[in-house]
This record gives sequence, C-alpha cells and structure tokens, in this order.
Amino acid sequence: MERRKFLKGAAIGAGATALATPALAQGGKQLTIVSTWPRDFPGLGTSAQRLAKRIGDISDGHFNVEYFAAGERVGAFDVFDEVASGNSQAYIAADYYWVGKHPGWAYFTSVPFGMTTVEWNAWIKFKGGQELWDELGAEFGLKSLPCGATGTQAGGWFNKEINDPDDFKGLKMRIPGLGGQVLSKMGASTVSLPGGQIYENLVSGSIEATEWVGPYNDYFMKFYEAAKYYYTGGMHEPGGGLSFGMNKSWYEGLTDYEKAVLQAACYEEHATSYEEAQALNGEYLNKLVTEQGVEVRNFNDDVWDGFGEAAEEVFEEVRDHSPLAAKINDEFQDNLREIGNMMALFEITFVNQRNRVLGLG
Amino acid sequence: MERRKFLKGAAIGAGATALATPALAQGGKQLTIVSTWPRDFPGLGTSAQRLAKRIGDISDGHFNVEYFAAGERVGAFDVFDEVASGNSQAYIAADYYWVGKHPGWAYFTSVPFGMTTVEWNAWIKFKGGQELWDELGAEFGLKSLPCGATGTQAGGWFNKEINDPDDFKGLKMRIPGLGGQVLSKMGASTVSLPGGQIYENLVSGSIEATEWVGPYNDYFMKFYEAAKYYYTGGMHEPGGGLSFGMNKSWYEGLTDYEKAVLQAACYEEHATSYEEAQALNGEYLNKLVTEQGVEVRNFNDDVWDGFGEAAEEVFEEVRDHSPLAAKINDEFQDNLREIGNMMALFEITFVNQRNRVLGLG
Repeated sequence: MERRKFLKGAAIGAGATALATPALAQGGKQLTIVSTWPRDFPGLGTSAQRLAKRIGDISDGHFNVEYFAAGERVGAFDVFDEVASGNSQAYIAADYYWVGKHPGWAYFTSVPFGMTTVEWNAWIKFKGGQELWDELGAEFGLKSLPCGATGTQAGGWFNKEINDPDDFKGLKMRIPGLGGQVLSKMGASTVSLPGGQIYENLVSGSIEATEWVGPYNDYFMKFYEAAKYYYTGGMHEPGGGLSFGMNKSWYEGLTDYEKAVLQAACYEEHATSYEEAQALNGEYLNKLVTEQGVEVRNFNDDVWDGFGEAAEEVFEEVRDHSPLAAKINDEFQDNLREIGNMMALFEITFVNQRNRVLGLG
Repeated sequence: MERRKFLKGAAIGAGATALATPALAQGGKQLTIVSTWPRDFPGLGTSAQRLAKRIGDISDGHFNVEYFAAGERVGAFDVFDEVASGNSQAYIAADYYWVGKHPGWAYFTSVPFGMTTVEWNAWIKFKGGQELWDELGAEFGLKSLPCGATGTQAGGWFNKEINDPDDFKGLKMRIPGLGGQVLSKMGASTVSLPGGQIYENLVSGSIEATEWVGPYNDYFMKFYEAAKYYYTGGMHEPGGGLSFGMNKSWYEGLTDYEKAVLQAACYEEHATSYEEAQALNGEYLNKLVTEQGVEVRNFNDDVWDGFGEAAEEVFEEVRDHSPLAAKINDEFQDNLREIGNMMALFEITFVNQRNRVLGLG
C-alpha cells in the first residue's frame, strides 16, 4: 500500500508546481523542464530533480529552473510535443519512447546488442554520435544532450524460467524500444508503458513479464509480488543514456556561457546517475533476494543466440525506414565494433582476469 | 626528432605562463593550477587544459584561471608541495605519485587488481571513497576531486615476450604506484619517472620496459622504437582517476557557488577524458600495428596468477603502514567486491555475451 501511495503521488499528482530551485535571480533565464519520470522515482525522478537543481546552482541562479515530473504539467509521453512546440524549454526522457515517430531515436537511448554507457558516451562525444542526434532532432525542432544513465539493464521479471528462445512465444511483456521489437520477432506480445503504469498491469495479469532498469530502481517497483524470476544483464538496453531534449530555437538563442552551463550540468549528471546505480545495485539485489525471495537467473547461450538472430532482423527493418535511419544504424554499428573491440582488449581483458583471480562474478 | 622537440617544448619550456582562459572578470577569484603533465601531452596535458578553460567558461569568468604545465612554474613532482603550501591553489596529477608520503594515495589513482573507472567513481561518489580521500588529504592540507581518467591501462611495452611470471626477474621497468611494488615482488627493478623522462631512459637502455597509458596516449611516446611487444589490459592500473588537488584552506573559504562550479567542471572532465581515450584507442592501436609493426600480446593466466599472489603481499604491507592506510585498503577492497560483483552480473554478463554473439574482442 505504501508503494501505491508513492506512485500515485508521484505519477498522478496534478498541478503540483514545486520549484526545483528557488528563483534566485530576478530576471534570470526561464527554463521549464518536463519529464517522463514520476517525481521521486529512485534513480530516475531523483536524477532529474538533481539536474534541475544543479543548473540553478552552478549558474548562481542565472537559470530560473522550474521542474515538473510526469503528470504535473503534461503526461509522461506528452513531453516531446510540449518541448517541440516551445511550450516548455526542455524535457528529460528516454528518447526511445519516440521510435513511433522515427526509429532513429532508439539509438540515442539504447538498442539491443548495442553499446555500454561508456562506449555510447565515447561515440556521442568523440565519434559523431552527437552530430547524428542533432540531425535527427532537427527534423522535430529539438536539440538533445545526454543527461542520465542506468547502466546495463536487467533482463527482466518473469513468472517462469526462460530456458529456450521459444519460451518467449505468446508472452505478454512490457519492453519498449527496439528491444521490444526483438522479443516480438521471437513471438512475444510486447507493449510500452510508462514507469508509473507497469505495476498495476503486472499484478492484474494484463502483462506477464516486464523489464525496468536494475536492482536499485526495480526494488521500489515491487514487481516481485507477481514475478519471482529476475534475469541479470539483458540484451535490450545495455547502456546509453537518457536525454535532456531542448527546444532547438530556444537553445540556439542561448549565449555561449548558457550553453556551457547546460552541457556541463548534463554531462555531470549523466556520469553521476550511472555511477549511483552501480554503487547501489549490490545493496538492493541483496534485499531482493534475502527479503523477497527473488530468484536470480542468467539467460543461457541458446537464448542469447535467439536474441542475436531476432536483433539482426530488427536492424534491417530500421535501415529500411529511411536514409537517415540507415545512416544512424550503420554508424552506430561501426563504432560499436571499433570501440567495443578495444574495450574488450583492455578493460574487459582486465575485468575477466581480475574476476577469475579474485573469484568475483 | 619531431617528438623530441615536442617533448622538450612541453616538459622543459621554462617560464611560459600562458593563460588557459582570458581573465574575463576583473576582480574574479584567482585560481592558479599546476600540473604533472607536459603542456600538450595527448589525453593528459590536453585534458588538464580543457578543465582549466571550462572552469572559466562555466563561471562566466568568475574564476580567473591560470594554468601551468609541468616545468612551467614548478617541476612535475613538485606540484604537491606547491599546493599544500598554498603557493598555488590546485594541482592536476595522479595521486599515486605521492605513495612515498603515504601509501593511501595510491587508492585515489588506481591500484593493482582494483576498480575500473566506473567502479571507482561509484565508490568515490556514493560509497564513502571521497570521505576517505578527504581524511587522507587533511593530513597534508589538501582537498581533492576526481578530474580525469584514462581507462584500463595497457600492460606495457617490452623488448621481449612475457610468458611466465619469472620473465619479470631482473627486468628494469618504469611503473609507479603499487603496480610497481607488485612487479618488484616478482623480481623486477622498478622506477617511477614522470612522462617527459620515459622515452630517453628507454632508448638509452636505462630501463628495458615501461607502461604509460593506452594506445591513444602511448602512440605519441614512440616507445615502439625500443620495445615492440605491447601488452593489452594490465593488472596495475585498471581504472580510477586523476586528481584535482586543492589547498584545503583555500577550498574551505570558497562559496557554495564556487564549490559547485569546481565540482561540476571536475566531474564533467573526469567523464569526458575517460570517454575520449575509449573513443580514440582503436584508431591509435591500428596505427601502432600497421605503421610501426607493434606486436600486441595478452598476459596468460600463469602471469595473471603471479600478479595476483604478489599483489596480496603488497596490500598486506600497505595495511601495516598505519591505521588509516589499513582502513583505506579494506574499504576499497570491500567496495571493489560488492560493486565489481554486481557489474559482473549485469554489464559484464552482457558484454561477454554480446562479444561472443557478434564476434568481438
């Protein structure tokens, strides 16, 4: 019950217009931010609030920031139109929510078999990813920056074990973005629901399985009440990040100083939110197992091979959408292979040897 | 010759006092930064300059930043005393250079079999690492923030293959920090030299092997002229970060606004420099192999097991130094296991399966 109250207050609480920071500067630059996250959702809502406050703090109040969580000004999935229209200046969201508008958006959150957060950051900042994001955003009047990350997401919550690719056949699961399309290819019936609506659908049986984020975020969602099997790192959202999507015309009217403040705050929060999840996942996985009797499982090689075949088909469909979609996919895949290969030689070689010698993992 | 000139200009150029940013604000807060890096050293000197400029930019010139590379105001290894004494306000360095003053400093750069950069960031920001760094710094009048990272460093440059732990016996190698102590246990004769002095010692034969950073950084050092075998991810510096070490009294006199600006700039640069190295390592490893005939090798399991045994002895010696050294080591090791285990279940599970399915690594 406590959790229902928490969700209700967060997701539905109409008309709440709490300021994230006091309006320190009279005549400061107005920045209204709307987000897809319920206000106090751990790791997502809290990250968005931290970013909003930080922009005010590091600009000494030059930006007059007003932050609205999902439902407080517009609904979670209405933030795109709210900002594209110029009604608010920025949204905080996962851009893969907009794949219905253009499949290219998926690559600026996370795609199946894609990049980890660090690989994605390297692509965005140094290998042309930001330029492609800008090209896509320009078609919709938006300019986006990375502003939050969760790390490799858990494979999801299931009410049965998954031992074979065929176990997805007929399964009703909440999983958005291209990851959802991969499972559809494998026979699942997938839906995209905002965070505030998953629990009730899972408990009522409208869906049988869901993915959300990872142990720290998932703990508070109480999915274990209806689905006991919790899978480790999945194929669907290996990394990438969340988006601070700004109205493009507004952004272009900013001074260099104002742009630098927003970029620094977004980059800082992007790193910090990712690290927060890695710091807290251990504690919360332990709670899930010991307090709630959750059963932790890995997908086996057969299941991963099935994911891989289905993902290839999904990427071919993305390429068929438009020249821009094909360009985004192809540059993403090339950079994934170059950066991923290199991290395999250095960081992953170390991690696998360290974990072997110390007995971790 | 070109490189020698580059190094000379960078490392020795006496008295150059170029401003990193124009002094925009009259009466702004003076911030003199000294560093251990030659001015334009790729990935290190360039990161330090980017940070210095950023602090000016995001404060709209409130901070009047002057940046001095190694040798421009004080020598590389003299920056500690320069800042502890209050003569300059901050240094940019790898804190493991100060292990002679206290072995605890090593944990705030990187230690053998330690944390990757992401794991280390999680510990520093969310699991008590910053508080321990502050406790250690207070003994020397310093307050430090993370401000740069290279990712898992390459095992190093050797003029022979390393196939057995005994191959380190008698080897003269440049390797600082606790990693150097591990190789000393294995019979190597190790030294710590600043970056600007490694090449000449390697070419002259004063040392036979060296580690530096990774392909992007190492390419410019031309070590391949004297050592053809280049080893992938090593045990000695898996991650962690560089330090923005401030005079503690000066820091404590800053306003909340000033502290927020410095923290945001440091956290942003910490992430960006790490990602830059991951983005560029592939391109530069390719150049090393195709242009210079460098031979890339992995250490085998026997060598890793040898590293592991020697590292255990080194950590015991650190613990014997003082209660604070023991506390830092023990908290580091506990958090490494908790965070590392969790990343193994999620991110590393994904990466190993992705790399298997896509044929990477």
